[in-house]
Amino acid sequence: MRIAVISEFSARDKNVHILEALGDIDAQVYNVGMTKDGTENELSYIHTGLMAGLSLASKAADFVIGGCGTGQGFAISAMQYPGVYCGLITNPLDAWLFSQINHGNCISLALNKGFGWAGDIQLSYIFEKLFTDIPGEGYPPHRSEPQRKSRAILQEINEITHKDFPSILRTIKPEIYTHIIQHKPFLDFIQNQAKENELRNMILNIDKQSLVPSA
Amino acid sequence: MRIAVISEFSARDKNVHILEALGDIDAQVYNVGMTKDGTENELSYIHTGLMAGLSLASKAADFVIGGCGTGQGFAISAMQYPGVYCGLITNPLDAWLFSQINHGNCISLALNKGFGWAGDIQLSYIFEKLFTDIPGEGYPPHRSEPQRKSRAILQEINEITHKDFPSILRTIKPEIYTHIIQHKPFLDFIQNQAKENELRNMILNIDKQSLVPSA
Amino acid sequence: MRIAVISEFSARDKNVHILEALGDIDAQVYNVGMTKDGTENELSYIHTGLMAGLSLASKAADFVIGGCGTGQGFAISAMQYPGVYCGLITNPLDAWLFSQINHGNCISLALNKGFGWAGDIQLSYIFEKLFTDIPGEGYPPHRSEPQRKSRAILQEINEITHKDFPSILRTIKPEIYTHIIQHKPFLDFIQNQAKENELRNMILNIDKQSLVPSA
Amino acid sequence: MRIAVISEFSARDKNVHILEALGDIDAQVYNVGMTKDGTENELSYIHTGLMAGLSLASKAADFVIGGCGTGQGFAISAMQYPGVYCGLITNPLDAWLFSQINHGNCISLALNKGFGWAGDIQLSYIFEKLFTDIPGEGYPPHRSEPQRKSRAILQEINEITHKDFPSILRTIKPEIYTHIIQHKPFLDFIQNQAKENELRNMILNIDKQSLVPSA
Repeated sequence: MRIAVISEFSARDKNVHILEALGDIDAQVYNVGMTKDGTENELSYIHTGLMAGLSLASKAADFVIGGCGTGQGFAISAMQYPGVYCGLITNPLDAWLFSQINHGNCISLALNKGFGWAGDIQLSYIFEKLFTDIPGEGYPPHRSEPQRKSRAILQEINEITHKDFPSILRTIKPEIYTHIIQHKPFLDFIQNQAKENELRNMILNIDKQSLVPSA
Repeated sequence: MRIAVISEFSARDKNVHILEALGDIDAQVYNVGMTKDGTENELSYIHTGLMAGLSLASKAADFVIGGCGTGQGFAISAMQYPGVYCGLITNPLDAWLFSQINHGNCISLALNKGFGWAGDIQLSYIFEKLFTDIPGEGYPPHRSEPQRKSRAILQEINEITHKDFPSILRTIKPEIYTHIIQHKPFLDFIQNQAKENELRNMILNIDKQSLVPSA
Repeated sequence: MRIAVISEFSARDKNVHILEALGDIDAQVYNVGMTKDGTENELSYIHTGLMAGLSLASKAADFVIGGCGTGQGFAISAMQYPGVYCGLITNPLDAWLFSQINHGNCISLALNKGFGWAGDIQLSYIFEKLFTDIPGEGYPPHRSEPQRKSRAILQEINEITHKDFPSILRTIKPEIYTHIIQHKPFLDFIQNQAKENELRNMILNIDKQSLVPSA
Repeated sequence: MRIAVISEFSARDKNVHILEALGDIDAQVYNVGMTKDGTENELSYIHTGLMAGLSLASKAADFVIGGCGTGQGFAISAMQYPGVYCGLITNPLDAWLFSQINHGNCISLALNKGFGWAGDIQLSYIFEKLFTDIPGEGYPPHRSEPQRKSRAILQEINEITHKDFPSILRTIKPEIYTHIIQHKPFLDFIQNQAKENELRNMILNIDKQSLVPSA
């Protein structure tokens, strides 16, 4: 599994804790947002939400870990895009239930609210329980089948309620788009890991196209 | 303020507590989903999410209160639709911060996970803090302006990433759509409260149109 | 390690979950309070607190797991007795910090408040983190030494603020005392596991002494 | 109601938040422990626990608000002394249930664990719900009477399990005792507010007695 960690401005001091807490997880981890001491441009949840959407849609990442002060902003922002199923996770039980019931591909963490002593330990507990069991088994067990069906219908709905990503990239404000493209760790990540060629090409070709992405 | 309460199957026994907890809030409350002892068709979060979207887009409701066992399913489902900004709220501080930072129009409650003794009291605390202060003032105070800007950009993004509701209604599986239309409290609510005429007409005319909604 | 599980009336339906959640812990578990379907006399936190104190003071148990609706009642009750250091634990991080900072010998669980879906899973997480690491290592690390000293002083204070257990047993209301002695799982536990002979003899000889325990 | 706020070393930076959060409570507030920028001797939970016990036993305070990093240490320390009934409170619902079920005279706050954004707001919510309703009404309502009886029995047990405070003061390590007496805000508080003359005199006369308190 390839996990993209995407930290925004208000909680960038927690980025290092996320990485450390992922240390015991059997996954390739890509740190593509802000870092604690980085000199990068400021990324808000507006940017990290789009980055989450692109990471998943381009198949560069199988799972995205984001967050913000309370976790609500990133969750709402990431959920604007097609193909993102994001849970707001504040404790290990949330994590396990989300993996079992919702089987999403993205979580948003509350990284300032309630983040005090041993907040780093709490993150390691969250990731442990998020990635321990086979996802999508359902909870409670007797609701497993209707939950599976709901997830399948949700994917169909997701497709008919959202525009496709190339259309989105052609209409989104250029300054949002170029802001994330200028963030080198993200650009490198897409370049090296993206599997969806059309989307990858759009993302990578922006500089040559006068800041207007082309399909 | 007009609040639509939309309860789904797994947590319908908590519907009465939501209504009671809203008793002290200065708002008109419409209970349009499942009730504890109702004989209605089973509504899953697939249905309640669409109902949330339609309630807001048709301007029948100013605010939607939904939820499910953990709150994640309804939040993800409701967020599929244009114009829905849904927070996952599990305690009073979440509620207040969401109102101040995110100023959303929908919340999802965890109604089985962590819902034990005095869960009804907890709901009343959540609503109290959600609706006490003028929303959108920002937190922490010095981040008020960038937070306001992020919310404005989020609305622009919401418009360009989602298809419009009439298009959605024309392509969504008819059984999902008809299921919610057959739920009389919801249909009455749209009929009496919806302000967006095109959307209201689409919703109300479905029965006459061989289950295919028309614009 | 020998763990005594002591459930009281209001949360006896959670007793089975406590036992199951202890299934993966390397310990001998003694279930000496109420059970879900048991026909025992009703035990309140007044009784289970005394049972906790006696289990530890008689060295029948190394650790006691109790609780009540919110956890507060059992914690306060158990802490009345000499040699009990009880934490109120509601999540895995609480459990780990308590083991590291406080290194107590008793925990009180909230078994109705906040106990909903997957409450049993939450218990297993709590026990896992409570018993994973060597207790008393301190947190944060640089406070390890002052925390160790504080625990040592606390034990000295505990001795000078409490009367000794034989004195307590001679003055406590006989109906409280006899109530717990008539609870066979507890009496058997003391008979088979207690190591402090004076206290063990006092507990076991009560029936022969016209309900007045003798030293 | 007279409330004593008693902050220890590890969470003294939260003292100001406790005071602010008490601003709307109808009570006289005495800040007798550490302050954020004070130059006082370091007070550990060993000291603040004794201060809590003395504040209540001398009838200088009707209620004590303490805490520490996780809240466990102060709760355990304060509960060593006769007449202290301390709850560990981490959210508003805890606070309300503790006031209704346990009707204690002391709370311990977790002031580092989980204390992040808006932790000060959370404190104000806790105090609001702690002091809103008449305490001791019971919860759930049908358990009101057995809960009242349990509290009465608990007080009887508290008396027979603890030594009296004068005996405790005569045997506790002088350095613990003198440490808190040298903390001027606390000494002034006892001098001005204590109602129990024997205990008040013992506390105030320590300096003249070569650090050995006299009855």
